[in-house]
Amino acid sequence: MKKFVNDPKNYVAEMLQGLALANPQTLRYVPEYNLIMRADTPSDAKISIVQGSGSGHEPSHVMSVGKGMLDAACPGDVFAAPPTDYVVETIKRVASPKGVLLLVNNYTGDKMAFEMAEEFAEAEGTKVRTLYIDDDVSVQDSTYTVGRRGVAGNFFVMKAVGAAAERGAELDEAVRIGEKVNSVTRTMGMALTPCTPPAKGSPLFELPEDEVEMGVGIHGEPGRRREKLQDADEIVRELLGAVVDDLPYASGDHVALMVNGLGGTPLSELYLLYGLAHRQLGDRGIDIRRSYVGDYCTSLDMAGASITLVRLDDEIAELLNDPAETAIRVF
Amino acid sequence: MKKFVNDPKNYVAEMLQGLALANPQTLRYVPEYNLIMRADTPSDAKISIVQGSGSGHEPSHVMSVGKGMLDAACPGDVFAAPPTDYVVETIKRVASPKGVLLLVNNYTGDKMAFEMAEEFAEAEGTKVRTLYIDDDVSVQDSTYTVGRRGVAGNFFVMKAVGAAAERGAELDEAVRIGEKVNSVTRTMGMALTPCTPPAKGSPLFELPEDEVEMGVGIHGEPGRRREKLQDADEIVRELLGAVVDDLPYASGDHVALMVNGLGGTPLSELYLLYGLAHRQLGDRGIDIRRSYVGDYCTSLDMAGASITLVRLDDEIAELLNDPAETAIRVF
Repeated sequence: MKKFVNDPKNYVAEMLQGLALANPQTLRYVPEYNLIMRADTPSDAKISIVQGSGSGHEPSHVMSVGKGMLDAACPGDVFAAPPTDYVVETIKRVASPKGVLLLVNNYTGDKMAFEMAEEFAEAEGTKVRTLYIDDDVSVQDSTYTVGRRGVAGNFFVMKAVGAAAERGAELDEAVRIGEKVNSVTRTMGMALTPCTPPAKGSPLFELPEDEVEMGVGIHGEPGRRREKLQDADEIVRELLGAVVDDLPYASGDHVALMVNGLGGTPLSELYLLYGLAHRQLGDRGIDIRRSYVGDYCTSLDMAGASITLVRLDDEIAELLNDPAETAIRVF
Repeated sequence: MKKFVNDPKNYVAEMLQGLALANPQTLRYVPEYNLIMRADTPSDAKISIVQGSGSGHEPSHVMSVGKGMLDAACPGDVFAAPPTDYVVETIKRVASPKGVLLLVNNYTGDKMAFEMAEEFAEAEGTKVRTLYIDDDVSVQDSTYTVGRRGVAGNFFVMKAVGAAAERGAELDEAVRIGEKVNSVTRTMGMALTPCTPPAKGSPLFELPEDEVEMGVGIHGEPGRRREKLQDADEIVRELLGAVVDDLPYASGDHVALMVNGLGGTPLSELYLLYGLAHRQLGDRGIDIRRSYVGDYCTSLDMAGASITLVRLDDEIAELLNDPAETAIRVF
């Protein structure tokens, strides 16, 4: 294993320490509960937004904490759901009288932890709603899910509800917006290489030198099939075809297009993919109004990429356009 | 080779097309001269700033074009200097009556191309100054250089002179500032893995599974030595020690700290490194005032990282704090 790591047991904690040290004005790390929260006092005039998930998907979700995005993130260990009591504590620390919105990517472990945390928090008098994200069109059910997986499209839900919260949206309104964004967002990804969890010390799965995993999950879960490595144009055609046909997106639609890196793919390749996707969408008459290129939801050091489309209406476009202040650039 | 690529000959052009398509309001791609420039009309009230270099280092330099940074970038092919006539054309397109500042990382090929371009431009009546960046402490002379190499610290020179230009600095003043920033900036990097140029199709060099290249160049040039892979703490100690001792940075100094990824290293590992570097600098009494974590100057898909320090005075700190608008987040 070739990684920057000390004791693999401390991988997540040391990453979170680094994140907080790099952003002392805006982020606070609470090691007892492994959580990252905004450094400023939570406002009672605004609903609070929390996301949790396994670590290894950075910048999701710990680097998405900040004004206009999340109020806190409670990550678990690498690819593992956070413990329920950590989620409970996170909710408690940022709870607003207006309520707390929990964002959860649809994985069985995360879902269980957050459902239990929601019950605890409600029993203590906190108003809570939970919103599940399931944008991955690759497979219907998967290794860790009943139903579709939540992947990079999650970014758009965070961004839209984060902006709505800053604008003063009530909890039900934020849920309506988040569900709408999720309902018009679709993603598919593929892996050129496997990823290596620090504690495992070896690749999660094997891929022959000339094969790729089409439709891979962000924990290395199997996708639709393995196939021979093809030209970038062909790869984009396959990913984009699956995404477009699923909603479906139609000629005349206004969309946001994201080309997301899975952690080990350089920006040069992502922009190359973006250009191909942009042209192919143009050929279909689909009108790209917002563009996102970079690492938004990764799978440790996996080389690979995903393509996400969001169908925009005026409300979603405006919320995506609002400012946000996080450790990563978001708009 | 596992990469997102069509015909490797078109790798750079397709990347630049993607970059321009993703930023239609702010960037223009001129395919005849392989250049990326600001989409708005160059202002006569401001000096113009141009940087060129081989491709494969993205976001350097094509993704650093924008208000407050570069007016144009003229990249060559992967790891190759741009042709002189392309540099001449780039200067012509953005030339301001106040003059043009050329930023060049110290490599023999780039230096030759830019020196000739400077002569041509001056012969045509354009006021030009050139500033060389050589922040890499690893080796004195290298495969492609006489003297030290220019690497990730280049970002700080671009940012400072870009901000000074927006504030109305004259050409000589911008050169003074850029030279000052370069003189207080030091970097050292290391590779966990080699990188693979698309046209070559195989790794540029070989590294055994348990070894790293300490002090590697951003074109895969040899560094100081190969050694066994160590804990992240030990790696940071070695990189930071070389950097700190070189200027040297002293207890009480205010600095900017950058942990830069070389293209194949995920954010989680970069933040882990950042945290360790922050603590080690604290132990030395060095005071970190600005933090940068991410991919700023890469070497294609190389897994690895570099550490850069800049000694801040009030002038540099203010210029780094100014806003900038590029395809990547810069502040």
